[in-house]
Amino acid sequence: MFKNNDFIYIEYTAKIKDTGEIVDTTNEEEAKKANIYDETRNYGPRLVILGENRLIKGLEEALYNFNLNEEKTIEIPPEKAYGERDNSKIKIVPLGELRRQGITAVPNRVLRLSDGSLAVIRSVSGGRVVLDLNHPLAGRTLVYNVKVVKVLNNAKDKIMALIERRFSSKYANGFNVELDDGKKSVRITIPKDLYLVEDLQINVYSLAYEIVNYVLADYTVEVLQQYNKSTFSSS
Amino acid sequence: MFKNNDFIYIEYTAKIKDTGEIVDTTNEEEAKKANIYDETRNYGPRLVILGENRLIKGLEEALYNFNLNEEKTIEIPPEKAYGERDNSKIKIVPLGELRRQGITAVPNRVLRLSDGSLAVIRSVSGGRVVLDLNHPLAGRTLVYNVKVVKVLNNAKDKIMALIERRFSSKYANGFNVELDDGKKSVRITIPKDLYLVEDLQINVYSLAYEIVNYVLADYTVEVLQQYNKSTFSSS
Repeated sequence: MFKNNDFIYIEYTAKIKDTGEIVDTTNEEEAKKANIYDETRNYGPRLVILGENRLIKGLEEALYNFNLNEEKTIEIPPEKAYGERDNSKIKIVPLGELRRQGITAVPNRVLRLSDGSLAVIRSVSGGRVVLDLNHPLAGRTLVYNVKVVKVLNNAKDKIMALIERRFSSKYANGFNVELDDGKKSVRITIPKDLYLVEDLQINVYSLAYEIVNYVLADYTVEVLQQYNKSTFSSS
Repeated sequence: MFKNNDFIYIEYTAKIKDTGEIVDTTNEEEAKKANIYDETRNYGPRLVILGENRLIKGLEEALYNFNLNEEKTIEIPPEKAYGERDNSKIKIVPLGELRRQGITAVPNRVLRLSDGSLAVIRSVSGGRVVLDLNHPLAGRTLVYNVKVVKVLNNAKDKIMALIERRFSSKYANGFNVELDDGKKSVRITIPKDLYLVEDLQINVYSLAYEIVNYVLADYTVEVLQQYNKSTFSSS
C-alpha cells in the first residue's frame, strides 16, 4: 500500500483489451517486438511520484494498492484512460486541403496537427477525407500488466531520482546533494559541464519545485554553482 | 596614475576634430543638444576596467595617465580610434538593388547592413549609388574631453559595479555579495525575481568570468539560488 508523494519505480506493458495490441511498455525488447520502439525514450523501470498525475488516472489510482514487488494485471476503462470517443471530433475536410499541406491521405494514417494533437484518417472518398480528432486510444479499455520494482525511502535518493529524470545520465552523476536536517536545507551543487547547456535555469527551477512539493516541503533548496579561474580555461 | 584591472568611472564628450561635431557623450543633456540622444542607453559616469579593451585604444591608453578627479582633453588619431579610411571599402551598387530592399537612397544616409555593420551613402546618380562601408568615424581624429570621477578600491564595490553593469538596477539591488577572505571565496546570492528572467545563466557565467579575471583571481565564486515553498506560491 502506497500513499501520496511516495516515489516508486514500475515496469509495465499496456494492451488494448479488444485487440491485444501492445500500445506502451517500459520493456525495450517488448517495444521492438511490438514495433513501437522509440529510440528517444529511456526504457527500463519508470519513476512514478504518486499524486503527480503524470500517468493516466486509472493506472495511478491502482498503484496506491500495490506492494513492493507485487505484479498485477489491471483493466482500465476509457473514462480513466484516454476518455470516451466524442463524435463531434470527427471532421470532414476536402482532400485538396491536406494535399496543400503535403499530406498523402491514406486510411488509418495518424497525423500530428499544428496544435500538437493527433488525428486519424478514417476514410478517403469522393475528394473528401474523414478525420478523427479523438485521441487514438479514446474509447479503448486498456489492460496493464504492472509490477512495482523499487521504492525510495530517503530524501536524498528521491532528490537523485528527480535529478536523473530531468538531466541526462551524462550530467546527473555530476550533481552533489547534501542534506542538513538541522538547518532544514538541502544544497545541490550543479556540475560545471552544465553551466553553458541550454535550459539549465528552467530545469534548476523545476527541480527545486519538485523537491519542495514532493520531498522536503519545509526545507530550503540551495542551488550552487562554483566558478574559479580553471572554469574558464580552454581545455 | 592607474594600472591594469583598476575600476574607474569616467565622464566624457567626444567630438570630430575637423568639424567639432559631437559623436558620443556620457552626459544626457549634451546628447540631447547634439541630437544623438539614445533612450536605450544609460547616461552618467561610465565604468571602465583598465585592460578590458571595451573602449577605443587611444582613450583606454590615455586613461592610465589620469588621476582621480583629473579632467583632460585628449586628441586621438584614427589609428587609435576607428582606423584609417580604406578605399577598397567603397562599393558602387545599382539603385534598383537598394530599392528592392526598401531603402530610399539619399546622400549621407547611414545604413545598417545585414551583417550589422554600417555603411554611408556617399552619392546617388545615373542609377548608381556609391556606398561607403568604412566605419562612419574612420579617418577621423577625435577629441575627447574626459574626467575620471570615481575609483573603486575594494573587491566588494567592484563586484557590485560588475553586477550593476550586467543587470538592470531593478534587479542589481537584490543581489547579496559576501566575501570570505579566509576561505578565499565570494558568495553571490541571486535575487528570486531573476530566476525566470531570460538569459540569467549566461549572465551569471559572464559575471563569474569577470570577477575571477578582474577582481579576485585566486578566489572561488559561489553563485547561490535559494528556493522554498513560498518561491512557487502565486502572488
